[in-house]
Amino acid sequence: MDARERALAYVQQHEADFLQRLAEFVAIPSVSTKPEYQAEVARAADWLIDQLQRLGAQTARFTEGVHPMVYGHLPADNPDAPTVLLYGHYDVQPAEPLEKWSQPDPFRLEIRGENAYGRGTADMKAQLLALLAAVEAVRHAGPQPVHFKFLFEGEEEIGSPGAARVLAAHPEAFRADFCLNPDAGMQGPDLPSITYALRGLAYFELRVHGPSHDLHSGAYGGAIHNPAQAMAELLAGMHDADGRVTLPGFYDRVRPLTDEERARLAQIPFDEEAFLASAGAPALWGEPEYTVLERITARPTLEINGLYSGFIEEGSKTIIPAYAMAKLSARLVPDQRPEDVAQGLRAHLETHAPPTIRWELEQMASAPPVMVDVDTPAVQALARALAQTWGREPLYTRNGGTIPIVAMLQDQLGIASVLTGFALPDSGMHGPDEHQHLPTWYKGIRALVRYFYELGESGS
Amino acid sequence: MDARERALAYVQQHEADFLQRLAEFVAIPSVSTKPEYQAEVARAADWLIDQLQRLGAQTARFTEGVHPMVYGHLPADNPDAPTVLLYGHYDVQPAEPLEKWSQPDPFRLEIRGENAYGRGTADMKAQLLALLAAVEAVRHAGPQPVHFKFLFEGEEEIGSPGAARVLAAHPEAFRADFCLNPDAGMQGPDLPSITYALRGLAYFELRVHGPSHDLHSGAYGGAIHNPAQAMAELLAGMHDADGRVTLPGFYDRVRPLTDEERARLAQIPFDEEAFLASAGAPALWGEPEYTVLERITARPTLEINGLYSGFIEEGSKTIIPAYAMAKLSARLVPDQRPEDVAQGLRAHLETHAPPTIRWELEQMASAPPVMVDVDTPAVQALARALAQTWGREPLYTRNGGTIPIVAMLQDQLGIASVLTGFALPDSGMHGPDEHQHLPTWYKGIRALVRYFYELGESGS
Repeated sequence: MDARERALAYVQQHEADFLQRLAEFVAIPSVSTKPEYQAEVARAADWLIDQLQRLGAQTARFTEGVHPMVYGHLPADNPDAPTVLLYGHYDVQPAEPLEKWSQPDPFRLEIRGENAYGRGTADMKAQLLALLAAVEAVRHAGPQPVHFKFLFEGEEEIGSPGAARVLAAHPEAFRADFCLNPDAGMQGPDLPSITYALRGLAYFELRVHGPSHDLHSGAYGGAIHNPAQAMAELLAGMHDADGRVTLPGFYDRVRPLTDEERARLAQIPFDEEAFLASAGAPALWGEPEYTVLERITARPTLEINGLYSGFIEEGSKTIIPAYAMAKLSARLVPDQRPEDVAQGLRAHLETHAPPTIRWELEQMASAPPVMVDVDTPAVQALARALAQTWGREPLYTRNGGTIPIVAMLQDQLGIASVLTGFALPDSGMHGPDEHQHLPTWYKGIRALVRYFYELGESGS
Repeated sequence: MDARERALAYVQQHEADFLQRLAEFVAIPSVSTKPEYQAEVARAADWLIDQLQRLGAQTARFTEGVHPMVYGHLPADNPDAPTVLLYGHYDVQPAEPLEKWSQPDPFRLEIRGENAYGRGTADMKAQLLALLAAVEAVRHAGPQPVHFKFLFEGEEEIGSPGAARVLAAHPEAFRADFCLNPDAGMQGPDLPSITYALRGLAYFELRVHGPSHDLHSGAYGGAIHNPAQAMAELLAGMHDADGRVTLPGFYDRVRPLTDEERARLAQIPFDEEAFLASAGAPALWGEPEYTVLERITARPTLEINGLYSGFIEEGSKTIIPAYAMAKLSARLVPDQRPEDVAQGLRAHLETHAPPTIRWELEQMASAPPVMVDVDTPAVQALARALAQTWGREPLYTRNGGTIPIVAMLQDQLGIASVLTGFALPDSGMHGPDEHQHLPTWYKGIRALVRYFYELGESGS
């Protein structure tokens, strides 16, 4: 029995231990979005430091961000081994509304059928612990085939506002050949997946100001421009009738989908009816010349995330509001840049805003889109490990969301990310009854073990 | 000295008493818009019942509405005298924000210079007490020239939601030749005014529903229609580039402004720069072929009073909102009908709403527009009384606002209203430092005395 087989046997024998550890981790309500949970977020960081130290790692707690970033380093004996940076986030979304959960306490892990239920299981405490379990198994089996570094952040669910500062303060600590990020999920229990592209984000707040205060619509209506109406007109002009974004230059830098890529995306089983049912909308929508999967992963969008003006309580109040506000965000695909969207928005407003109102545009969060070269040894080694574990080649997918840390690692440190994960699409992330499918999780741990040995052999 | 002169002398001698009474009335914080003031609203009704009984009136408290409606009857000896229904509302707006007042307690009347400051002075406790003061003076001077009836409501500031029920329950009690309503103000201290037209109102709440719950814009953006965007497009289509309402049939029943009426309106001193300054907006706006005064009084409008969708807190959240909501109201001019606006809105939505969203439209408050014939004896008697008091003919004005009780009296009981008032345009109604100009108030009381004698003589 070679080291790889010993490590895989170790995983098999310790499934119950790993599950017990998941229960402990989930029991710490590390909700990063609410200030009152700050101590719990810090406690989760401490718990991880402890786990890393048990594995023998050097650790550090970097505090330049909003919540601690946990760092660890576990070098291999062979100095020439490749270095893989293992990424995870240990913070979770709030559990509310509690009454929508089937269990009394979302932070007390419950096993029902093949699933472990609890806030933060799928997203992503189970994924993070899969990394630690695989490292533990590999270390138990003999000399480690690669150098391990660890980057566990506590502010992913709030958009990683401090991560750039941490990376800038510790560039040497995080130096690695590439980053393995298991926060990207998979398409189904029998569909291992590698995500090779993420959409970027450009987020804005637009304010349209009219009168200096709310006016009585009986006394002023007809002679003072209503800023909510002006806002509606400005927003309406940002899309054409087919749902295409009309901001100047918006599509200029969009890399066209090649026939090869469209063919590869078409292989991904995607049930449009189930997708629509999960949204609960009356119908599908969007650019007719693209498939639904292409629209949500490979095409850029401009969304209104929030809209406010005037009187929105129950009842009626007859005012011309003083101002209107919209939250707008664009999802970007390669090679769009957030700053180009800002420029297009300003150009649209300068052209179309009437002199009867004033506007101001504030740019908030932004992250460039990411696309990973799938032909690198690091990605191909993962593909082999997944294929060995599931008995089929992985799907290559694009994800329509944004993972800010992926863009930061690329831009600040030149570290590409390899994206995968063992959370299933219907795992209830961010909602009630979040869960991790356990057979898939154990398979995932074994796939990671295989991956580390594949990496060591490929010499990455 | 005849009765009229005795009554005018009585007013002159009792100005200090009237002012003392205004202080008492203002000290009752009869805020109808807030449930916690309900007992104070009732106390103001009791106080008025007491005032009416001191004048010798029969009184009743009608409770079919939300707040009590105070009724009084004071017949003349001559059964053939005309009956005038004296209208007032005894409820007031909230005083908040308190820190914006120059006095510590808005409900403690303060005299500074020629003005009496306090919440509800101009709107309309001083106007209501002017009626009672003039009736008192007339009764002191000899036989009353007209039958007096009184209708004092406590829910004007919340849109008179129960007034229609009260009128329907007591049609005989309120029977009168016409109603005198001093809630319409005047154009300036030297510009006595008769308001002959009010705009009507049709108020709606529009909801546009998309997905069944807020969606992650990274996972769904591009393939599910954003209801805030659909709302913006639907709203933007309700006006053309010149600010005209595009709802089908919206202008069909608008009575055109005659040259004669435009000439009369042009006589009203109206300072467009001061109007714009009071609004604090960057520029004037509206239908270019009408004057500003015509736009705000004689032309119909469609306003967005409120707008909501999705995430409107500080920061950023990347969702496709489940729904969007707009509060919409049209100001109507003769002969538009609220139900026609509802029909036009529905037609617009049926034509333009895409199948990717659902919409629902709820009609809330509505009131038809009002136009009074200025050639009636009741109006001409008021014109003479105002001219005798101010030494100049009154202005005939249209008011862009809506007074629901005026339309109800007309529609339910066939009673036309004669609209005037002694509140000046800059009296701070609904805002901080509300005040009544006292010399104008005393003049107003004298004008009402003269009016009652003019009415008795005209036999109307």
